[in-house]
Amino acid sequence: MKIVALAGGIGGARFLRGLRAAAPEADITVIGNTGDDISLFGLRVCPDLDTVMYTLGGGINEEQGWGRRDESFTVKEELLEYGVGPSWFGLGDRDFATHIVRTQMLAAGYRLSAVTEALCDRWKPGVRLVPMTDDQVETHVVVDDPEQGRRAIHFQEWWVRLRASLPAVSIAPVGADEAKPAPGVLKAIEAADVVLFPPSNPVVSIGTILSIPGIRDAVAAKTVVGVSPIIGGAPVRGMADACLTAIGVETSARAVAEHYGPDLVDGWLVDEADKDVTVEGMEVRSRPLLMSDPEATRAIAQAALDLALELAR
Amino acid sequence: MKIVALAGGIGGARFLRGLRAAAPEADITVIGNTGDDISLFGLRVCPDLDTVMYTLGGGINEEQGWGRRDESFTVKEELLEYGVGPSWFGLGDRDFATHIVRTQMLAAGYRLSAVTEALCDRWKPGVRLVPMTDDQVETHVVVDDPEQGRRAIHFQEWWVRLRASLPAVSIAPVGADEAKPAPGVLKAIEAADVVLFPPSNPVVSIGTILSIPGIRDAVAAKTVVGVSPIIGGAPVRGMADACLTAIGVETSARAVAEHYGPDLVDGWLVDEADKDVTVEGMEVRSRPLLMSDPEATRAIAQAALDLALELAR
Repeated sequence: MKIVALAGGIGGARFLRGLRAAAPEADITVIGNTGDDISLFGLRVCPDLDTVMYTLGGGINEEQGWGRRDESFTVKEELLEYGVGPSWFGLGDRDFATHIVRTQMLAAGYRLSAVTEALCDRWKPGVRLVPMTDDQVETHVVVDDPEQGRRAIHFQEWWVRLRASLPAVSIAPVGADEAKPAPGVLKAIEAADVVLFPPSNPVVSIGTILSIPGIRDAVAAKTVVGVSPIIGGAPVRGMADACLTAIGVETSARAVAEHYGPDLVDGWLVDEADKDVTVEGMEVRSRPLLMSDPEATRAIAQAALDLALELAR
Repeated sequence: MKIVALAGGIGGARFLRGLRAAAPEADITVIGNTGDDISLFGLRVCPDLDTVMYTLGGGINEEQGWGRRDESFTVKEELLEYGVGPSWFGLGDRDFATHIVRTQMLAAGYRLSAVTEALCDRWKPGVRLVPMTDDQVETHVVVDDPEQGRRAIHFQEWWVRLRASLPAVSIAPVGADEAKPAPGVLKAIEAADVVLFPPSNPVVSIGTILSIPGIRDAVAAKTVVGVSPIIGGAPVRGMADACLTAIGVETSARAVAEHYGPDLVDGWLVDEADKDVTVEGMEVRSRPLLMSDPEATRAIAQAALDLALELAR
């Protein structure tokens, strides 16, 4: 069985760990969001790819959901001693090594997809992890800054530094229009029996992946099941509501499904709190959606997969 | 009083700390060797500049003589987990921050001399530290490798990885012919009351600095006093003998003085073990030369400075 999943960071990575447990024999390709990528200290940082890689490879900080476990922050502290920031982005020493290797390979001419494959040689995530594109796409957020007026800032500045405290006027994946899917992305989707959307952010994770020309159409041609990132009107984690508001979508399981639309998504898994939700043109099922432990997460992934296989028949 | 000192790594840095104590009011410019510089993991590493900066700035690992104190090696260990080496070069986490800042500034277009000044803003070494050149000069060593035949390797590979165990056929500062002294180097020498050679390696430290066109002539025009790096026929530290042998110079206080020559050096400080040494055209003085503690080191620097001032009259 061939499965393709689109994935953002923490929520996506945890879902994927459940999916791997639910379908240990399946051939799983993960198309990772790179819109959150940022260059810091001259190094290329890919937070979502790394979160997936570390989570599936056993290196993640479980409590935090991102970054390495047993992490230290000596390099960052030393950089701040030199007056070199930003201080608000938490790069640990172990994590730095990943970015150093990535940057060195990129500088040598390797594409991000090849670099990601090389990094995964170490982590052995048990899935094939492919960035959505090898081209540079960076999500920018337009905010009304009380001090500096309306301006566009990098997604990470809005998300991590400002904790989305300034309302987003708009959110755009800069560079997406000219970007091409990374090698293997479209083929993997075409070959897939089913495509799954983990409960990742529908705007800045799944939405960004779908913004790469060619990916949405390829996905729409398949049987797609999504897991709602919204439970009872609030994001399961993160600040998806701030992103949804920016694009004029209500923070509800139903509104997110309608935002994706029945042309794209065939089945929609919602939490029991949203069991009355219906979406025209979609098969909606309800079950507990809190990924509270590995077994609960496995069962959610199993349910998404089962629904997808049922609809694919 | 204006003093210029040429300096390599550990021995030079310790001498400079003594010189600063001996002449706290003096305006000291240190011209640092960059022939040992190497690019590792995509980062530019300047071992001698950093040893001077860390030693005078209070950040050095005193026992080791190089690298930062309270150092950890998490980044390096992680790089090795990715299969990325070399493993033989000891870059610690604190040290990595220095190289990250330097590399980022160089990539932004700053010259090494400007970068070094920026790094020294933090360390406040109490001297003006200037690299010998902003151009890339790398000392290469030709060796007869029993497995790979005669080949040229980077100085650090010979020095650190091989511990100079393969005899050097020749040693050359690659790129020196076309290099220009960094801004301020020649002016500092011209303005100096005296020039001092610390007990640094006469081949790969002082010799490399003197190989930059213009520096030797500028130094030769001044009153110069050198401190012998050889005591009783052996290097005080390091493997200077292996370098001297490669250029056909005996490992003795006298031979090193004659290698510099009376056209360049006016006064020569040797250890009491070498008190019978005479060098034609040079004023030779003997005294204890072991830099065993700060006070002993200060006294050595004081003696070198006193001799230089006496000869400059």
